[in-house]
Amino acid sequence: MISRHPDRFRVVGLAANRSVEELAALVAEHTPDIAVLANAEVPVARSDLPPADWEFGHDAVVALAEHPDVDVVVNAVVGAAGLASTIAALRSGKRLALANKESLVAGGPLVTAAAEEGGGELVPIDSEHSAILQCLQGCDSAAVARIVLTASGGPFRTLSLHELATVTPGQALEHPTWNMGAKITIDSATLANKALEVIEAYFLYGLPYDKIHAVVHPQSIVHSFVEFVDGSVLAQMGFPTMELPILFALTYPERLADTELRTFDPVKASPLTFDEIDVERFRLFALGVEAGRAGGTMPAVFNAANETAVTLFMEGRIGFLEMGEVVETAMSRHSISAIQEVADVLEADREARDVVRKVTAAEHPTSPT
Amino acid sequence: MISRHPDRFRVVGLAANRSVEELAALVAEHTPDIAVLANAEVPVARSDLPPADWEFGHDAVVALAEHPDVDVVVNAVVGAAGLASTIAALRSGKRLALANKESLVAGGPLVTAAAEEGGGELVPIDSEHSAILQCLQGCDSAAVARIVLTASGGPFRTLSLHELATVTPGQALEHPTWNMGAKITIDSATLANKALEVIEAYFLYGLPYDKIHAVVHPQSIVHSFVEFVDGSVLAQMGFPTMELPILFALTYPERLADTELRTFDPVKASPLTFDEIDVERFRLFALGVEAGRAGGTMPAVFNAANETAVTLFMEGRIGFLEMGEVVETAMSRHSISAIQEVADVLEADREARDVVRKVTAAEHPTSPT
Repeated sequence: MISRHPDRFRVVGLAANRSVEELAALVAEHTPDIAVLANAEVPVARSDLPPADWEFGHDAVVALAEHPDVDVVVNAVVGAAGLASTIAALRSGKRLALANKESLVAGGPLVTAAAEEGGGELVPIDSEHSAILQCLQGCDSAAVARIVLTASGGPFRTLSLHELATVTPGQALEHPTWNMGAKITIDSATLANKALEVIEAYFLYGLPYDKIHAVVHPQSIVHSFVEFVDGSVLAQMGFPTMELPILFALTYPERLADTELRTFDPVKASPLTFDEIDVERFRLFALGVEAGRAGGTMPAVFNAANETAVTLFMEGRIGFLEMGEVVETAMSRHSISAIQEVADVLEADREARDVVRKVTAAEHPTSPT
Repeated sequence: MISRHPDRFRVVGLAANRSVEELAALVAEHTPDIAVLANAEVPVARSDLPPADWEFGHDAVVALAEHPDVDVVVNAVVGAAGLASTIAALRSGKRLALANKESLVAGGPLVTAAAEEGGGELVPIDSEHSAILQCLQGCDSAAVARIVLTASGGPFRTLSLHELATVTPGQALEHPTWNMGAKITIDSATLANKALEVIEAYFLYGLPYDKIHAVVHPQSIVHSFVEFVDGSVLAQMGFPTMELPILFALTYPERLADTELRTFDPVKASPLTFDEIDVERFRLFALGVEAGRAGGTMPAVFNAANETAVTLFMEGRIGFLEMGEVVETAMSRHSISAIQEVADVLEADREARDVVRKVTAAEHPTSPT
């Protein structure tokens, strides 16, 4: 999106975790002042790197997020690992364009406190939350009766419980409508992603959980609904692409003309259908919402247990339905406490990962390859 | 809606054309200061009328529309006859909640000039235009790429041209989704109503005609779409009831909680479908848009010819498809001129009605009963 609008944006810095080659290519293209590789253990041939102030390690990522030349931080870290950058950006008064919903889910109270403390502004890149933000423009938030997030339902929407037991990571990575990274694609297949988004909405829009609903919408054209106290509903719609929510997060509340973004054809998009989420088949959805309602450290536990379960599923160590089982075990063994500082989140996160790994090791002593 | 929110609204005056009994009942219920019967020839037993300052005649309607105690004028007159009240309300700085789209279609330039001159505010009650207004809240109007009005398609959506030739007024009055008056219900069956709405949108939102589209949406759940320059689309949705646009026109930009207005259930509303308008079968739609594009007095001619055609169809004098034919004849015989004053509109209106009646009399010399 930045390449398409060079008159509007300048890249101050770019960061990646381990993907040094992809990062170097982006640095060559966008010529930022600063480039950061978070994982300092990745072997790097310095002479191959394009010109920039190259930094290494997680602290350098956080330093970039609060760099004085930066107006907008796009945080697209995968998982709770993005929490430090999220907090740093908000505390230093930046606009934080957040694709890393897990940081908000795991450390919600810390994130909202950081925004209040530093005057930072949290703008979602998640398509559903971008949709809600767009529907809320010019509205009094007291007039919101409820929001309804849409979920594609993923590739296994119509499978029975029996069929779900044997689906493979390869099948789960075949998302029917959205082209995204591996972790979020698995989360879409289990609907854990929609639970994370319910929690994200809770922190972004300050609505109680009984005003946050979700429905299955296989076509991914309606990106979410907002219902108002007079019974009126606004919906944001469009061809499913992350380009639009990314651009809107950068330009909000303005809209930038972008003719490469596909226009909407209601006739071609027809029919649009909506179904209830089956919480029996998609147990991780119900567990995630339950974690959100429980509050305190429980969302961090849900998130960490789910991240670990996804990794184990991708490695072929556990089955699709076992992801729900191990997350439920991690949640049932956790004693909720309030989140006061980042250490509380990290401890709950570590504990949940340990539980999931130990339970998996006990149940699958010789792991299949 | 006013009965349901007595703490928010007080009825200053009520007016009707000939329906004195219904008006008397409303006067008894709402106890306005003033009551007006526009048609002074209707026999009235003064002793039967509930207490109010009763006035008679069209001038009294216009005087009520500019009465100093009035903040909001709801104009629900049928047809171009509402033009004088529309202009009076806007010229005297009122909010005009407009259900009488024909006054805007016929006298658009006069209506917008009256609003500018008197500082009046034009707020649509039409559900489609209310939808657009709701989608535009908090938006820069320069960011609007186009609007798409939805049309139910009426009761004859799936009929062939051959079948359309023999449909009866009774069949045309059976609207599948909306419960409305007779004239607009026939206009919905011919899709003339959607053409009137395209012209209404042109004057309300100042968009060129090539940015105003319409699609058939048989479920009448999506009330219209707005597409922005970044490819994003907002839609306003809900159960089809006129209560919501009426309430919104009264409270705009605020939303008033109304628990009797049905909440939206996307699952029960599923599926939502969209189709192109077939301009061959629904010729009045194409003619109306053509009249809008032609401008000047032509929209007034289209509107008056259509009003007359609807009356003749309701009287059994002409067939369903003949409505399009006589309107086309009236338009083809008209020489467009600019609208400078109300007399220009009235003259074009009268001329079109004459043409339609004469053409009908010539083609059906002995009218069926």
